[in-house]
Amino acid sequence: MVAGHEGFWAEDPAALLRAGSGFVLADQQTDAHPGFDGDKKDGRRALAVGAGILAEQQERLFAASTAGDTRSVLLVLQAMDTAGKGGIVGHVVGAVNPQGVHYTAFKKPTKEELAHDFLWRVRSAVPGAGMIGVFDRSHYEDVLIGKVRSLADAQEIERRYGAINDFETELAASGTSIVKVMLHISSAEQKARLQARLDEPDKHWKYKPGDVDERMLWADYQEAYQAVFDRTSTEAAPWFVVPADRKWYARLAVQHLVIDAIERMNLAWPTADYDVEGEKKRLSAT
Amino acid sequence: MVAGHEGFWAEDPAALLRAGSGFVLADQQTDAHPGFDGDKKDGRRALAVGAGILAEQQERLFAASTAGDTRSVLLVLQAMDTAGKGGIVGHVVGAVNPQGVHYTAFKKPTKEELAHDFLWRVRSAVPGAGMIGVFDRSHYEDVLIGKVRSLADAQEIERRYGAINDFETELAASGTSIVKVMLHISSAEQKARLQARLDEPDKHWKYKPGDVDERMLWADYQEAYQAVFDRTSTEAAPWFVVPADRKWYARLAVQHLVIDAIERMNLAWPTADYDVEGEKKRLSAT
Repeated sequence: MVAGHEGFWAEDPAALLRAGSGFVLADQQTDAHPGFDGDKKDGRRALAVGAGILAEQQERLFAASTAGDTRSVLLVLQAMDTAGKGGIVGHVVGAVNPQGVHYTAFKKPTKEELAHDFLWRVRSAVPGAGMIGVFDRSHYEDVLIGKVRSLADAQEIERRYGAINDFETELAASGTSIVKVMLHISSAEQKARLQARLDEPDKHWKYKPGDVDERMLWADYQEAYQAVFDRTSTEAAPWFVVPADRKWYARLAVQHLVIDAIERMNLAWPTADYDVEGEKKRLSAT
Repeated sequence: MVAGHEGFWAEDPAALLRAGSGFVLADQQTDAHPGFDGDKKDGRRALAVGAGILAEQQERLFAASTAGDTRSVLLVLQAMDTAGKGGIVGHVVGAVNPQGVHYTAFKKPTKEELAHDFLWRVRSAVPGAGMIGVFDRSHYEDVLIGKVRSLADAQEIERRYGAINDFETELAASGTSIVKVMLHISSAEQKARLQARLDEPDKHWKYKPGDVDERMLWADYQEAYQAVFDRTSTEAAPWFVVPADRKWYARLAVQHLVIDAIERMNLAWPTADYDVEGEKKRLSAT
């Protein structure tokens, strides 16, 4: 059981999924569903219940910001191709009023972005007060593909781990709850999903030949992810590794992590900073 | 019946709601449901069906952009306070994957924004290729509150109508389908909704004493809206005035306007620009 409003967890998935000290990516199952006892059907039902809970929590977060609370949430999504980032954005973040979401997809850096430090574009995209920020890929690409493809030398990669920790520590101290998620699929599952994109003409646009090029570097990427967890899973900004072969579970787990981040803020509805009875009279006179 | 995928309209609401030549705001009913024969329950059911249609249309729009199509949609929302813009964003735009939405709320201009022409902040917020842009309030504030509160003189307001038409004509020519919506509620309905916000402590944060100040200028705002329709409801960027006393109807109607804008683009799924069979072999070998 988790604290808070969700009643459908057998055990708190946050504790089970967190990449703590001694975490080994290679030991993680990709088709498990830690903390949830039900099947796909139960999972989908739970997701719908959780959607309502998340929507209300988000409204509280937004409401608090109108009364001067500066807190916010940042969900960082990283994964190998086809792991389901888009589905998380659609099915988890999509439950929240778009007014309260600040979504940023980080693509291959532009010339202007490359002319700045790797954190430059990231700093300008952090969520404002009351918002749920979503990073679809992030500054972690600069120590993932950056490392695997040797886009930066080893010394620069080292520097970046430290810069990331400093940046995230500051961001957390300024009131942003950071939830970093790696959606973890197996190599076989990725193969099946890429195959499905090639088999269905309506999905051809989702496939790029470069996807297979990256796939050939699977082991290197897993190693780069392991280094990321070793170096940047901090108290201020922990990593959660979410088994993602089952899409329904990954969505439910990420939904919980975001709900949990907001519930921990203990947000009350803001009280009126005006004379309620006086306003009733003023309104009544119109 | 409308063309396209929605089967639940008796008549195309786009034609019924469009502010054409000779349109008189004061003659419009705020509690009607033009084009839809059902009641609230039917309307909610239809909205759920339409949500699926809109989500698919949006995916087509997004997919096309990955193949070089530069088209996009811009939904402009204007209304008196409490008319339900937030509900439209949540229930209509919320049906779409947040990856495909570019939402901007235009608030009271900042000092930096005021140091530029009124269209400056608006130009930088137009949707990119494949996106549904949403303006929650817009450049129209500059000829609405701008006029009612005399924030600009009459000559400047005149200039703005022309600048808006030029801007929107250019934007439409560059591939953005512009859908401008005014959510139209009655003065009595606004009073009831403000009253509800004052009556429920959980809603106090949604109320500002300034809302009653604006309410006292109701007639001036209606006149300013009439001028907006007279001057800026163009072929390239028409206005639609949506009766909004019934929230369920307003949501259904705006959902249709967005679906319709995308369906008119006749988007096919992009075809592969790579060798599909060759890629299947390459993938199979991994």
